[in-house]
Amino acid sequence: MVTKVIKNGTIVTADLTYKADVLVENGVITQIGPNLKGDEELDATGCYVMPGGIDPHTHLEMPFMGTYSSDDFESGTRAGLAGGTTMVVDFALPSPGESLLDALKRWDNKSTRANCDYSFHMAVTWWGEQVFDDIKTVIQERGINTFKHFMAYKGALMVNDDELYSSFQRLAELGGIAMVHAENGDVVAELSAKLLAAGNNGPEAHAYSRPPQVEGEATNRAIMIADMAGVPLYVVHTSCEDSHEAIRRARMQGKRVWGEPLIQHLTLDESEYFNPDWDHAARRVMSPPFRNKQHQDSLWAGLQSGSLSVVATDHCAFTTEQKRNGIGDFTQIPNGTGGLEDRMPMLWTHGVATGRLTPNEFVAVTSTNIAKILNCYPKKGAVLVGADADLVVWDPEKSKTIQASTQQSSIDYNVFEGHEVKGLPRFTLTRGHVAVHDGEIRCQEGHGKFVSREANTTVNKALSSWKELTAPRPVERSGIPATGV
Amino acid sequence: MVTKVIKNGTIVTADLTYKADVLVENGVITQIGPNLKGDEELDATGCYVMPGGIDPHTHLEMPFMGTYSSDDFESGTRAGLAGGTTMVVDFALPSPGESLLDALKRWDNKSTRANCDYSFHMAVTWWGEQVFDDIKTVIQERGINTFKHFMAYKGALMVNDDELYSSFQRLAELGGIAMVHAENGDVVAELSAKLLAAGNNGPEAHAYSRPPQVEGEATNRAIMIADMAGVPLYVVHTSCEDSHEAIRRARMQGKRVWGEPLIQHLTLDESEYFNPDWDHAARRVMSPPFRNKQHQDSLWAGLQSGSLSVVATDHCAFTTEQKRNGIGDFTQIPNGTGGLEDRMPMLWTHGVATGRLTPNEFVAVTSTNIAKILNCYPKKGAVLVGADADLVVWDPEKSKTIQASTQQSSIDYNVFEGHEVKGLPRFTLTRGHVAVHDGEIRCQEGHGKFVSREANTTVNKALSSWKELTAPRPVERSGIPATGV
Amino acid sequence: MVTKVIKNGTIVTADLTYKADVLVENGVITQIGPNLKGDEELDATGCYVMPGGIDPHTHLEMPFMGTYSSDDFESGTRAGLAGGTTMVVDFALPSPGESLLDALKRWDNKSTRANCDYSFHMAVTWWGEQVFDDIKTVIQERGINTFKHFMAYKGALMVNDDELYSSFQRLAELGGIAMVHAENGDVVAELSAKLLAAGNNGPEAHAYSRPPQVEGEATNRAIMIADMAGVPLYVVHTSCEDSHEAIRRARMQGKRVWGEPLIQHLTLDESEYFNPDWDHAARRVMSPPFRNKQHQDSLWAGLQSGSLSVVATDHCAFTTEQKRNGIGDFTQIPNGTGGLEDRMPMLWTHGVATGRLTPNEFVAVTSTNIAKILNCYPKKGAVLVGADADLVVWDPEKSKTIQASTQQSSIDYNVFEGHEVKGLPRFTLTRGHVAVHDGEIRCQEGHGKFVSREANTTVNKALSSWKELTAPRPVERSGIPATGV
Amino acid sequence: MVTKVIKNGTIVTADLTYKADVLVENGVITQIGPNLKGDEELDATGCYVMPGGIDPHTHLEMPFMGTYSSDDFESGTRAGLAGGTTMVVDFALPSPGESLLDALKRWDNKSTRANCDYSFHMAVTWWGEQVFDDIKTVIQERGINTFKHFMAYKGALMVNDDELYSSFQRLAELGGIAMVHAENGDVVAELSAKLLAAGNNGPEAHAYSRPPQVEGEATNRAIMIADMAGVPLYVVHTSCEDSHEAIRRARMQGKRVWGEPLIQHLTLDESEYFNPDWDHAARRVMSPPFRNKQHQDSLWAGLQSGSLSVVATDHCAFTTEQKRNGIGDFTQIPNGTGGLEDRMPMLWTHGVATGRLTPNEFVAVTSTNIAKILNCYPKKGAVLVGADADLVVWDPEKSKTIQASTQQSSIDYNVFEGHEVKGLPRFTLTRGHVAVHDGEIRCQEGHGKFVSREANTTVNKALSSWKELTAPRPVERSGIPATGV
Ligand SMILES: [Zn+2]
Ligand SMILES: [Zn+2]
Ligand SMILES: [Zn+2]
Ligand SMILES: [Zn+2]
Ligand SMILES: [Zn+2]
Ligand SMILES: [Zn+2]
Ligand SMILES: [Zn+2]
Ligand SMILES: [Zn+2]
Repeated sequence: MVTKVIKNGTIVTADLTYKADVLVENGVITQIGPNLKGDEELDATGCYVMPGGIDPHTHLEMPFMGTYSSDDFESGTRAGLAGGTTMVVDFALPSPGESLLDALKRWDNKSTRANCDYSFHMAVTWWGEQVFDDIKTVIQERGINTFKHFMAYKGALMVNDDELYSSFQRLAELGGIAMVHAENGDVVAELSAKLLAAGNNGPEAHAYSRPPQVEGEATNRAIMIADMAGVPLYVVHTSCEDSHEAIRRARMQGKRVWGEPLIQHLTLDESEYFNPDWDHAARRVMSPPFRNKQHQDSLWAGLQSGSLSVVATDHCAFTTEQKRNGIGDFTQIPNGTGGLEDRMPMLWTHGVATGRLTPNEFVAVTSTNIAKILNCYPKKGAVLVGADADLVVWDPEKSKTIQASTQQSSIDYNVFEGHEVKGLPRFTLTRGHVAVHDGEIRCQEGHGKFVSREANTTVNKALSSWKELTAPRPVERSGIPATGV
Repeated sequence: MVTKVIKNGTIVTADLTYKADVLVENGVITQIGPNLKGDEELDATGCYVMPGGIDPHTHLEMPFMGTYSSDDFESGTRAGLAGGTTMVVDFALPSPGESLLDALKRWDNKSTRANCDYSFHMAVTWWGEQVFDDIKTVIQERGINTFKHFMAYKGALMVNDDELYSSFQRLAELGGIAMVHAENGDVVAELSAKLLAAGNNGPEAHAYSRPPQVEGEATNRAIMIADMAGVPLYVVHTSCEDSHEAIRRARMQGKRVWGEPLIQHLTLDESEYFNPDWDHAARRVMSPPFRNKQHQDSLWAGLQSGSLSVVATDHCAFTTEQKRNGIGDFTQIPNGTGGLEDRMPMLWTHGVATGRLTPNEFVAVTSTNIAKILNCYPKKGAVLVGADADLVVWDPEKSKTIQASTQQSSIDYNVFEGHEVKGLPRFTLTRGHVAVHDGEIRCQEGHGKFVSREANTTVNKALSSWKELTAPRPVERSGIPATGV
Repeated sequence: MVTKVIKNGTIVTADLTYKADVLVENGVITQIGPNLKGDEELDATGCYVMPGGIDPHTHLEMPFMGTYSSDDFESGTRAGLAGGTTMVVDFALPSPGESLLDALKRWDNKSTRANCDYSFHMAVTWWGEQVFDDIKTVIQERGINTFKHFMAYKGALMVNDDELYSSFQRLAELGGIAMVHAENGDVVAELSAKLLAAGNNGPEAHAYSRPPQVEGEATNRAIMIADMAGVPLYVVHTSCEDSHEAIRRARMQGKRVWGEPLIQHLTLDESEYFNPDWDHAARRVMSPPFRNKQHQDSLWAGLQSGSLSVVATDHCAFTTEQKRNGIGDFTQIPNGTGGLEDRMPMLWTHGVATGRLTPNEFVAVTSTNIAKILNCYPKKGAVLVGADADLVVWDPEKSKTIQASTQQSSIDYNVFEGHEVKGLPRFTLTRGHVAVHDGEIRCQEGHGKFVSREANTTVNKALSSWKELTAPRPVERSGIPATGV
Repeated sequence: MVTKVIKNGTIVTADLTYKADVLVENGVITQIGPNLKGDEELDATGCYVMPGGIDPHTHLEMPFMGTYSSDDFESGTRAGLAGGTTMVVDFALPSPGESLLDALKRWDNKSTRANCDYSFHMAVTWWGEQVFDDIKTVIQERGINTFKHFMAYKGALMVNDDELYSSFQRLAELGGIAMVHAENGDVVAELSAKLLAAGNNGPEAHAYSRPPQVEGEATNRAIMIADMAGVPLYVVHTSCEDSHEAIRRARMQGKRVWGEPLIQHLTLDESEYFNPDWDHAARRVMSPPFRNKQHQDSLWAGLQSGSLSVVATDHCAFTTEQKRNGIGDFTQIPNGTGGLEDRMPMLWTHGVATGRLTPNEFVAVTSTNIAKILNCYPKKGAVLVGADADLVVWDPEKSKTIQASTQQSSIDYNVFEGHEVKGLPRFTLTRGHVAVHDGEIRCQEGHGKFVSREANTTVNKALSSWKELTAPRPVERSGIPATGV
């Protein structure tokens, strides 16, 4: 097979910055060092050679009212590669009553056209003996150790507190990791109804119906339940100080909790919903909604201090057409925006170029941290001999203006339209295949493979030991009752 | 009618400390000043003349499995008076489906034998149109502005989040105040089942099943829901730092939230449950359970700083016989302990004598603060002309050892058994009647009257103004959708 | 003597809201009740009758480079009365090496023309045996129990940490209360020099040189030192979240600490310094400087929750002429703004009318709280029989636009110029004299008297008891050293 | 040269856990992989192969009253190797007025006998032009980028706030890192004098004189000054929640601050000082002193969450004889305890075996984190090809009881005497030399070399960019003053 060598670059990992060439064979890194030779040379002069990005939060070809979100595994992963992302993790969503394995089959089918590697989180959208049993199969036979729970979307995906506890406890037994979409679904439903009743039916009311408080509350609740069940917890799309505060407070007590801000929440704010153009506002409808600048500052500080761990996108690309389903009733606007293609350039521009993040921290939050959490490190998220050659050759001087008209993603707009970014891929490699070549897209449909991930991470084991050590013990009693008897 | 004058004492209120006599006529204070004369003289030399205590959290003659908690309105209020408490507020608890007014009728009946004045909080234990309507009647016609919600006791009293929101919103409209028993009932039920399954069936498992985390979580949740609904919130029996932290955080944001530690949580700790004597432990079973010393420190600091407002008892006196219902299954131990008689001496001894609280702060947290919150100030909680002569003449040098054998309360034990207290009533007056006279109990059964309390306190009004001012407003849009249309 | 009666008003105190007339004789309230009669009637229909405001932080006729700040005790107290303030507390500032008593004499001389009552805080601007001795005299013979310490103004008023500790410990012994101007003077000096060196010499650089961090740090430090010395602490002009956070954290631990936001910091923000008009910016130069909106929100929430206690002004009125001393060098702009006349209308407008504060809380933070802290309650800060008739009859419907051209204060500008206020005095009474009569100023120069304040408040006593109880005790040892000896 | 291969072990790094052999040549790791061969084989069956520990906080042969602390670079590094530590960083301490370079020369001389590699932090114990100049030389020519500042030890090592600021600003310019010993030296001096005056002269008074509050305060102050100067800050020996809270709060705001708990503070508590044996207590005198269990919990949680980064020892071994210098006056007890030999076994036993830390986190906090912070990663702190072969082969089943009688350290006692540890080195390699061989010590005196460390880490660069981006800018003004002129 043809070998490739990335020449003259500076390798940047979560740990290290150093000059070296990288040799790639059979999709894997086989040498790192000076003066390497290969059949094909990729010139990285002036560039950083980094682990390809991992976006752990996407919804590709997501079902919606008989149709689907517009980016499927093909266009979605192509968009990702264009922006330096070489792996996505999507959510397999069972319908109420559906077996987890059946849902998984549907996701297996969709993902066959993927241009880069991918994995799945399994959603637990209802509770029962079958789910209890399926979790074991999913973990032990299907290479999935992460299970998502929706605390919102009442009447659809939402599960309540005893279901959460039951599922979390099951995961604790089997070494899985719990994930939550944290918003109080009951309160969101009540607020939505009240807003609609008051004639507040535009997209801005979507934001009003899901204030930071309802996210903070649900995050806090999920943390408590995870603590009681003894399972590590990953909170998806942490958008605000309220939620971040709950996470910080938990971590401060030694709890095993991670938070995931989205690139949208880091760089856009709630004023988008006040745009007089309905379409402009509706296109930005997602849950949680964009927040104000103070919440943004909180998220950035979380990335700096380590109280937040991962930057994702929640990429779920509904078209303007689909968005217009909610004209006159904001609750009918499908929730979701894009971002897969722009996450890394936007984060570099606003994070590294400003000095908020070091280049190593950039790698950590876009790739390495999540690879470790999800237990696919160092196959992914690393520049190490033996690791998959999922690499991005990052040109810090390359710039562009983000425009829907030139993007890979198949939606008809871009929430970052008009934003300047500086810092873009010169090359993106997915298991050795050069999918982005100096501005040219050379994807291979179906190249992507499923990434299997084992349970019982070191964090699971440590937490279980501690919980066992501190478990409640019965008091020894000689006679019951004893007093005066 | 006979006039009484309290001579030579030092008046201590939440505000002031000064020498003056107090003249009482027809149950009301009619003069405060030097050298007053009356038909009957009560010598307060060396004593503090303070507003009688108000215990806003009692369960007298509380129904339990076809029987009742042992202190009824007669013995309970007698115990209160013996300890300097001149008013109690009990909870009217509707059965599922029962009208609030029917429940209230049952409580009206029980309270006819009360030795001192009393009022009621109304519990909302289910939700429906009748409850929605009844709340208005209760507020506008029955003189009750406080409504209790149980977030625990799943399958019995517990209401869920949308019921909470609906009730809170109703209260916001009508100017009421929301109260919560804050523990996550779903999680308590799960933990209880797990403990029992593991053979953890003793009274200590009661504490294990309701750790501080589940109380903190529920408190945090209630605060968010109250904030969304725009209603002031009173959190009963705040027992731990977790819950206190949620209250402090809310107050820090300007939210209108109050917390109520109990005298038991301030002075006793979880080691009581590890006593090898089953009865000893079971007698101390209440919800929330006793906590460790760090939680105690948190509660004291809350009283000092004002983040906690009121000291109560949750007096609910189950006998040893009744407690033994839970032998072999801690979930069947009736929840409740005594305290009405001991609250004020215990708080004085551990609070004022140590320097943690000033005498004025003692009055504030045992009487004045709650009178203001409940909107019966200055009829109660004050030493002012025109106020009810609910007074305690407090002798800071009088001491005793607490003993069940000599108490007024009709339970057969005392959770403070053996504790030394210094600071006790020389006289207690309930609307002018001297119910405690230098160690002698001279109660009048049926003397107590219902205290009516109006809605729309100044806090309600201020909060409503602010919520109106900051309510979500729709964005003006010229065409919907507008883009490219 | 002529008696006056305030008729038909609603009395509003820190505690209570009720309809009653108020009878005033010889400068004192002699009756409160319905249908009172007096020689002169003041019609309070539609008005609130409240305790007159107390501004505990003024610098009248403050020495500055051979001249003085423009408002002296005459014009300053006249401005105060015009706005409903009936007492001011000024700071007696010894020069380095000067005896406290000599400084006090200078302040006694200045205050003879005061139109309303006043008191003094004593500043400790250096340390030595004479100061050690003088503190006792000042407390025990001169009716002053509050001592101010400057942690900034290096080379002038500033004292360092061991001086702070020595002074605080002395105050703890004698029952005094410590006060601090909390900014890190060393760091302010360094930052100022650096800014000037970089050509940053405009008034905005004043704000740059004193960021919230340096205030937060000093507040935190003062709290620690006060805790070690065992003295209650009052932090003047708390302007920001950083400082407020330190206060909240201290209170959360039960420490006896109070914070005082200024009306300027509650309603104006740092953008004032970015005004292209040098004079506009320079007139707003004070220390600490104005902050951003987030800091404002923090201060308001502090008033709501009780973590901040008092609203003051730090009134120190330098004219535009005096301000221009700092052209080309911001460190030479005299520090100080006005506010005495506007504090109460501005706070009512932005606090009560919005629903952030109840009318009772308004009274608490403008008058009653500080009267209690300073130990002159209920002579001041109360509407009670026997209290001084320092009263304001507040018309919530009266409005005006603040304008320097019509103000009582003698400065030539007003930092609130152009702000609309709604809520103004109809009458202001200073010890019974009607100094403001329906828009007309009827002050009596020299009417004001010194208010003497005793040491050893209840808070001092409680804190001392607690510190004694928890003081370090030596370990009993049988032989020293003992091991193997 | 002889090659060595570590066979059959499991490599554990801060990142990874995997089976592989390690080949060592010329003191460097040259291969990692399966089935490696070398001249000499070290059997790691059942063991973890980890980066050798780095103790960044030692005082070997520390001057004290004409004599020295008993462990010098020979015995100290031998003790370190015995416990798995392969690098120490000591503090070069200039006398007042002494040039930094002269002090460094003295430390160079002492370190010639070191058994393992070492580096130095430079202390800034006074301020002046020479120090200003020397810092540049030390950074640019002597391979030291970390500068320690003492906020305590008044009259000796202590520097005040403007000296701190000046030094920090100098470090910011040159890309250095600031370190602080954070205790308020003024207050410690005052408290010490007060305790002695009260007859509190035993070793327990050492703890009383340095309560958590004085450490928390100084930490908070150092953080503010570092923030103003724009320099990263490393807080040595973080012993308590107060200090940890300040660090967490700073990190929460995105500040670049690290905290270093000591193994002593993690595992021992203040009750040691209450031992009736004077020697027992005095041997444990160090600054900060041991704290209570709540502080311990805080430190452990900090390691779990990442708010604390490094576990060190502050090893400074004074003999019982030297300790007795302080009989009758605790301030004369030399400050310092041992720990170099026990740090890793104690942390493994109490951290990893309990489940508080994962094995990877153990490596991070004992080695990798500090190597990154100090800028000697991956030469140190890594198991990577090209890294120094500073390795420990850790046997998790090997146990012992800690005893002074069998230790390498030359002090005559051990603060962990009698503690059981499980988890000990089978082999320790220092740059390839097997210094510990299955229980046998085979050190080579003088084998250790100085580790040079460059300035301008990625964190320095990022922080400087951000500070530049957000630096104060002058306001453009057209005329000064402009108003009405
Ligand atoms: Zn979601
Ligand atoms: Zn999603
Ligand atoms: Zn309850
Ligand atoms: Zn109750
Ligand atoms: Zn000041
Ligand atoms: Zn001032
Ligand atoms: Zn030190
Ligand atoms: Zn040290």
